Amino acid sequence: MFDLPLDQLRDYAPTVTEPADFDAFWRATLDATAALPVLLDVRPEPTDLRLLDTWDVTFAGFAGDPVRAWYTRPAAVGGTLPVIVEYVGYGRGRGLPHERLTWPVAGYARLLVDARGQSGQYGVGDTPDPHGSAPGGHSPVTWGILSPAGYYYRRLITDAVRAVQAARALPGVDAGRVVVAGNSQGGGLALAVAGLVPDVAAVLATAPFLCHVQRAIEITDVGPYGEIVNYLSVNRDAEAAVRNTLSYVDGVSFARRATAPAHFGIGLRDHVCPPSTGFAAYNQYGAASGGPVPERSMHVYPFNGHEHGDATHVRRQLRWLAALLGEP
Amino acid sequence: MFDLPLDQLRDYAPTVTEPADFDAFWRATLDATAALPVLLDVRPEPTDLRLLDTWDVTFAGFAGDPVRAWYTRPAAVGGTLPVIVEYVGYGRGRGLPHERLTWPVAGYARLLVDARGQSGQYGVGDTPDPHGSAPGGHSPVTWGILSPAGYYYRRLITDAVRAVQAARALPGVDAGRVVVAGNSQGGGLALAVAGLVPDVAAVLATAPFLCHVQRAIEITDVGPYGEIVNYLSVNRDAEAAVRNTLSYVDGVSFARRATAPAHFGIGLRDHVCPPSTGFAAYNQYGAASGGPVPERSMHVYPFNGHEHGDATHVRRQLRWLAALLGEP
Amino acid sequence: MFDLPLDQLRDYAPTVTEPADFDAFWRATLDATAALPVLLDVRPEPTDLRLLDTWDVTFAGFAGDPVRAWYTRPAAVGGTLPVIVEYVGYGRGRGLPHERLTWPVAGYARLLVDARGQSGQYGVGDTPDPHGSAPGGHSPVTWGILSPAGYYYRRLITDAVRAVQAARALPGVDAGRVVVAGNSQGGGLALAVAGLVPDVAAVLATAPFLCHVQRAIEITDVGPYGEIVNYLSVNRDAEAAVRNTLSYVDGVSFARRATAPAHFGIGLRDHVCPPSTGFAAYNQYGAASGGPVPERSMHVYPFNGHEHGDATHVRRQLRWLAALLGEP
Amino acid sequence: MFDLPLDQLRDYAPTVTEPADFDAFWRATLDATAALPVLLDVRPEPTDLRLLDTWDVTFAGFAGDPVRAWYTRPAAVGGTLPVIVEYVGYGRGRGLPHERLTWPVAGYARLLVDARGQSGQYGVGDTPDPHGSAPGGHSPVTWGILSPAGYYYRRLITDAVRAVQAARALPGVDAGRVVVAGNSQGGGLALAVAGLVPDVAAVLATAPFLCHVQRAIEITDVGPYGEIVNYLSVNRDAEAAVRNTLSYVDGVSFARRATAPAHFGIGLRDHVCPPSTGFAAYNQYGAASGGPVPERSMHVYPFNGHEHGDATHVRRQLRWLAALLGEP
Amino acid sequence: MFDLPLDQLRDYAPTVTEPADFDAFWRATLDATAALPVLLDVRPEPTDLRLLDTWDVTFAGFAGDPVRAWYTRPAAVGGTLPVIVEYVGYGRGRGLPHERLTWPVAGYARLLVDARGQSGQYGVGDTPDPHGSAPGGHSPVTWGILSPAGYYYRRLITDAVRAVQAARALPGVDAGRVVVAGNSQGGGLALAVAGLVPDVAAVLATAPFLCHVQRAIEITDVGPYGEIVNYLSVNRDAEAAVRNTLSYVDGVSFARRATAPAHFGIGLRDHVCPPSTGFAAYNQYGAASGGPVPERSMHVYPFNGHEHGDATHVRRQLRWLAALLGEP
Amino acid sequence: MFDLPLDQLRDYAPTVTEPADFDAFWRATLDATAALPVLLDVRPEPTDLRLLDTWDVTFAGFAGDPVRAWYTRPAAVGGTLPVIVEYVGYGRGRGLPHERLTWPVAGYARLLVDARGQSGQYGVGDTPDPHGSAPGGHSPVTWGILSPAGYYYRRLITDAVRAVQAARALPGVDAGRVVVAGNSQGGGLALAVAGLVPDVAAVLATAPFLCHVQRAIEITDVGPYGEIVNYLSVNRDAEAAVRNTLSYVDGVSFARRATAPAHFGIGLRDHVCPPSTGFAAYNQYGAASGGPVPERSMHVYPFNGHEHGDATHVRRQLRWLAALLGEP
Repeated sequence: MFDLPLDQLRDYAPTVTEPADFDAFWRATLDATAALPVLLDVRPEPTDLRLLDTWDVTFAGFAGDPVRAWYTRPAAVGGTLPVIVEYVGYGRGRGLPHERLTWPVAGYARLLVDARGQSGQYGVGDTPDPHGSAPGGHSPVTWGILSPAGYYYRRLITDAVRAVQAARALPGVDAGRVVVAGNSQGGGLALAVAGLVPDVAAVLATAPFLCHVQRAIEITDVGPYGEIVNYLSVNRDAEAAVRNTLSYVDGVSFARRATAPAHFGIGLRDHVCPPSTGFAAYNQYGAASGGPVPERSMHVYPFNGHEHGDATHVRRQLRWLAALLGEP
Repeated sequence: MFDLPLDQLRDYAPTVTEPADFDAFWRATLDATAALPVLLDVRPEPTDLRLLDTWDVTFAGFAGDPVRAWYTRPAAVGGTLPVIVEYVGYGRGRGLPHERLTWPVAGYARLLVDARGQSGQYGVGDTPDPHGSAPGGHSPVTWGILSPAGYYYRRLITDAVRAVQAARALPGVDAGRVVVAGNSQGGGLALAVAGLVPDVAAVLATAPFLCHVQRAIEITDVGPYGEIVNYLSVNRDAEAAVRNTLSYVDGVSFARRATAPAHFGIGLRDHVCPPSTGFAAYNQYGAASGGPVPERSMHVYPFNGHEHGDATHVRRQLRWLAALLGEP
Repeated sequence: MFDLPLDQLRDYAPTVTEPADFDAFWRATLDATAALPVLLDVRPEPTDLRLLDTWDVTFAGFAGDPVRAWYTRPAAVGGTLPVIVEYVGYGRGRGLPHERLTWPVAGYARLLVDARGQSGQYGVGDTPDPHGSAPGGHSPVTWGILSPAGYYYRRLITDAVRAVQAARALPGVDAGRVVVAGNSQGGGLALAVAGLVPDVAAVLATAPFLCHVQRAIEITDVGPYGEIVNYLSVNRDAEAAVRNTLSYVDGVSFARRATAPAHFGIGLRDHVCPPSTGFAAYNQYGAASGGPVPERSMHVYPFNGHEHGDATHVRRQLRWLAALLGEP
Repeated sequence: MFDLPLDQLRDYAPTVTEPADFDAFWRATLDATAALPVLLDVRPEPTDLRLLDTWDVTFAGFAGDPVRAWYTRPAAVGGTLPVIVEYVGYGRGRGLPHERLTWPVAGYARLLVDARGQSGQYGVGDTPDPHGSAPGGHSPVTWGILSPAGYYYRRLITDAVRAVQAARALPGVDAGRVVVAGNSQGGGLALAVAGLVPDVAAVLATAPFLCHVQRAIEITDVGPYGEIVNYLSVNRDAEAAVRNTLSYVDGVSFARRATAPAHFGIGLRDHVCPPSTGFAAYNQYGAASGGPVPERSMHVYPFNGHEHGDATHVRRQLRWLAALLGEP
Repeated sequence: MFDLPLDQLRDYAPTVTEPADFDAFWRATLDATAALPVLLDVRPEPTDLRLLDTWDVTFAGFAGDPVRAWYTRPAAVGGTLPVIVEYVGYGRGRGLPHERLTWPVAGYARLLVDARGQSGQYGVGDTPDPHGSAPGGHSPVTWGILSPAGYYYRRLITDAVRAVQAARALPGVDAGRVVVAGNSQGGGLALAVAGLVPDVAAVLATAPFLCHVQRAIEITDVGPYGEIVNYLSVNRDAEAAVRNTLSYVDGVSFARRATAPAHFGIGLRDHVCPPSTGFAAYNQYGAASGGPVPERSMHVYPFNGHEHGDATHVRRQLRWLAALLGEP
Repeated sequence: MFDLPLDQLRDYAPTVTEPADFDAFWRATLDATAALPVLLDVRPEPTDLRLLDTWDVTFAGFAGDPVRAWYTRPAAVGGTLPVIVEYVGYGRGRGLPHERLTWPVAGYARLLVDARGQSGQYGVGDTPDPHGSAPGGHSPVTWGILSPAGYYYRRLITDAVRAVQAARALPGVDAGRVVVAGNSQGGGLALAVAGLVPDVAAVLATAPFLCHVQRAIEITDVGPYGEIVNYLSVNRDAEAAVRNTLSYVDGVSFARRATAPAHFGIGLRDHVCPPSTGFAAYNQYGAASGGPVPERSMHVYPFNGHEHGDATHVRRQLRWLAALLGEP
């Protein structure tokens, strides 16, 4: 047990450093693209899957950069459907259009969003990151990490917010029922969107990355947090700048601002995204929303690591969402 | 490159030891269960997936033992459909009913067959193996390995054959279009069925296990072959008995007897199921069928290990099968 | 130091969950075989060791199943001798008859008992497990783990108890001086017998397995405990059933009921059988025997792992036993 | 011995695929920057090293991008000196100004060139890569790898050529005695410059990377070649494009065009840059120069891996260079 | 974080067991050689480094044994210079004369001292250890470890003290400004000398080995401490003798006696020399000197292991020493 | 399969470099001690093993140094017995007197010989090596490796030869029936003795070390050969000297001179002592003896590494030796 025991995790709600201009920073960042047209291209994609229709979507993300996504929905179903905006894990992209089928097979529309510049480590993607100039490290999690403005995750989180806009602009989407979802980095992005977009219908964040990062880099040295640790072990004078940058993208700060119902999952043996960091977000979810604490549930998997609840968890998500959203 | 280079693999067709009573052994084994009623139970299974209907199937496998399977097909589609009988990899079971969706989402019926006694290493299953008595090792691949009659794979291959019978007995199945498919152990089982059942419509065998085993245990020490190697490293006097037992279940012998069109995939860096062992089966596929060599194709992934072509390969399978079978 | 420091271990006596029908369960289990004749076969075994005589013994274990053992004693020594009933570690069997010589060379009779179904991982054995039907995992420690009645260790512990009966029935054994002994799994079995058989003369339990299992699966993920952890990581809904099953075989519960003098050994760096779990048994040894605390001693090896005191410990065992039993 | 034995390496001279427009591609690439002023900034850097003077140099590299370098020379030595232009290994940058002292302490001027965008894995650097847009992978060796024009090494090799121009423009440099040197990636860059710049005085290439890449990615899966392998294992359809791109930056093609005296070093157990790939460059060094084969020597270290000859090799380099260049 | 957190380290000052005859033991040991002539041989060594002059020095160490060292100083600089006596890490020797250049390039004289008998694991040396007779283990850190008189570090620490004498006897050395310095084992030796030689000018001890050894062998099992742990895991009865021996060479005891200004560096993730053991020395530095606490500073590297601050730390050392010593 | 396949091993008989003064070197070495009294001390050792008598023997080895051994024989057996002189593996010593019992329990006298200076890595010993002065590395296999005269194995092989003399001088030994035996290093020593002592009765050499060393250091980098490789990777200029030294201790040269019947065992997956190196000795066993090839047998274990045939092999040794020697 390298992190806290479960009974302490249940109450773990650390104060996470938040820069004074946190809200202003994100307001300015999002405003810069808000007025750009969001859908750049939508074209049908053949998949050999007779039960689903898929489109290859290009939307305008951070700085208007083209970001790719798969839009998939039950074939030949008219009318609007709730949509799941799904974000992917670190080192992946949107993959091939027939790879992730759960949500559309369950009857929802689904927009599966690429992660710019990450293609090639574990999965394929089609979205380069045309920004390469800010000082920092050589892997996505450290690109431009020496300043909040140049940091990679400023761009990726903006893409994630824009993906919600894109989803609402797609034909056949019920704009009032947009759900954000993801595991690991995808879970971190879902939390970020939940804190930045006031009207999403639900959040599914599993084994979320980018939460309570200041602690994560002290207790683990694997996965993407480990890449930050490695960067700091080489750039010994960069700690203050890096910690400052990371305070602008911490999922705990986003979670505190969220208002949508939320469904979490965490494996207690997760060294990649240590459980205390996810509980830090869960236990403070909605705390700064100004309203009542949103409905939220946490599903714990005591014998699992970063693979968390896997199919067992997916089944719980399906049921929870069906109960929340009702019939598509 | 721990195995042969690709240009040598293309022509690699070693003579694999075949016991004189190979056909008699399997005839007797299959005859012993052939007359038993095959479907023991079929009941609807809720999945929260609106596009699919799923049934929890129990059929009578080896010795009439109950074997579980998921029968899944497009929801509310009348008429008969071609069916994919899908076998799973070593250390897995049929999993949860919403885990493997590709074939039914492509429009086929699909019967996903449990592997008796293997649940728990990588995936869940629901089929115990009620036979525990024959001398051998402690893990499935070595259970009863000292005699062909008591060997675990005699039971599992019989289950695989019976699964085809079960599929044909299910409502809504086009009995003339039964496809057998699987990766790794599942690929080995598909080849076994292709050699034992004369009228399957197609075979999809990817990174197949249990092929040219006599070589496999000499060149690798990982995965299930490695479990055999470990057994032999401890039971130093058992080599002859083990080699004799394995000669009754070698996929090359089954492949030589096959007549159905076949689609193969192999990763050249696969240490779990070394490429030469899969090519040994592919290059001799249908050679002892007494007829012309069946249509067959081999898809090579030079930079992949046991994960082979993954989604890229699935896409190729989907297209090949659609071309072969026509419209569902 | 992944477990507790030594000063805390000295006092570590956690309450271990014990099912209400613990005693009834074991009484019923043992009664079911108690009346069966115990010795099925005893035949001389040549070993090329001139100083020892060895017999290949088959006795009736759980459900009357044949269990093999080596009976070894100083050659050409008449009269009765105290006997050491020795149990083996996980993944082993009784081995070859010339492998374990310490006890007989010290002048004792010795019965070395096979572990059904475990042959082949680290050592050879000759006893299959003819029971394969209960739901559970694919390796011995998880066979049938979903129910106490079907669990593998119900059978193995019964075999261990029957081995004492068998030893007493062998020619030349002093039935009043039966010692049970073992390391790791063997130590766990020795403790189980000590709690189930009222009149053994001594217990030698070194690095004992199966003690305080509920904690063990929370703090380690290697060795046989790790196999349980892996099973639970895949079968995420099985935790309650598994914990219930394990409560019927916990060595702490057996140790509490024991009355014989006991000699323990533990390595403080043991990740396979964490020291706290062995101390949990030692510190409560005899606590529920209804009588005075039996003589007991604990030998700690601060720089050792699961190999514990090895030959140093054997020497201590030899001296302790000689002092306890007097002349053979 | 995972690569060829030494006697075969001595003669190993494979034909390396060279695109028809290889020379045109590089001519166009270099011409695009050739006319830009090369020195952007030169300022003294304090180092606490009394025997050396150091300047922080910024020169205009590919596309005129600012590239940083340390210019170091014996303190208070007037007149011109031969200069070593030194390139760094993969995952490093120019480091701190007091880190690499050998060449200046030997009496030479030395320009130590940053590698754009690589800072942070093993060493620090100060040069971001402002180009991020071409499709490819997520680590430097795969950035933009799907096209020669967008590939990272097109930019880095151009920087390396420009560094020679920059060195010649620095005060106190004898422009007729410019030596290029490096280990691993640095050795690959030195070879590239040797093939692209006609008048360098000598080349020191140790354990050179980027040579005979088409073979390297088939026989190793560690280090930066392993990153390409990993990219191809995920991007299974990219092999042709990647091989085409790599044919524009292969060190064998550069080596064939070289004319300067060359000093090589290779460890026979090098899995990062397999020895056959370095010998492929060495054995064909100067073969396409149109003139006599330049003076060249190869230093083999049979018991070393990628660390090659280390200090032993440095000593040989010092002596060889002193003999070649005479007095500074 | 396997050791204590930083806020606890800041105050960590454990009482370290000190034998009653600690001072007498060392006085007798040093007196035995004090009267021997120290310089046995000093001859110029060619290095191809024009900025430095190097001599190959042999001095009389423990028992008068010849110990080798490199004496290096700025070329052609007359007058006396402060001298850095530098000790090397475990498994190394003085290396080749052109390997470690920082201190002489900074303008100091430097004596780089071989470690007897350690050559060959990570670096080369030229000093055998002619004493092989005392009982103990097979690697330097356990040679003769069963008795203080026969222990290897008694010899090595004496060599380190004698190196200071040798440095003072060399031409061009300012005997009043002798600095002792080293990393890891070298840092431990520097502390030992600081406690044994009253008039050194400064101490640079980074990631020091041999401090608070009694704790180190309980919390780590890697590096040279791990070799002691391994020895104790085999020699289970040797713990008392080994702990007694180690109490004579503990860096905390030496540090307590020190009077010179000291500069420390520690990586918080150092498993080889755990941070608490270095802080134990730092926090008690000078505590038993009978005078005021000497000037001391500790540089912490939170993301580094045994590589500590590397070049960043060297820069801090250079500045600190320049401020302390003034102009050479 | 990292070494040659079995069919090539069967015929593998490489010419091993032999220095011209090989015989003279050993004659001089052995003569230097031949005249010294061999038994220094023999005293009874209590073991708590009633079937055996044990004495703690000290004999005069190389240079007359005291070497320890256990002399063990069936208790209370009068008359002379054949004796097995047993040598231990690398990193071990003679252990505790009750650890290795097979040979005495089989009815033989047995002298178990310590390996000077090796205690502590895997097992305990009681014999320091009082020679520490020759240049070389830091671990036994590299001590003094730069010269044949100073090399550690010159001393150890001399000890092994002297152990035969000591055995013959012990009471109750049949001097005409002295068998030398060992595994790994012990097997190498047995071969050395077989080549140096003309009248041993039999040789048991299993997985022998120190054979065809010139090849071994080229194809493996683990175990003691790996320590030599590591030494050479650091001492890059030492290759010629090391190869020369090793040519004086190569087991192939000893085996060629042997005349006694020999029993070999080898695991085909042995990376520590590669099978080709053992076959090189076996295939040339007795080839230079001047007489007929001695009786010899080779036992191959295809699925084993350095653990070779273990108990299975011991059983074969017992039978072979009983047939060869007849009744004790």
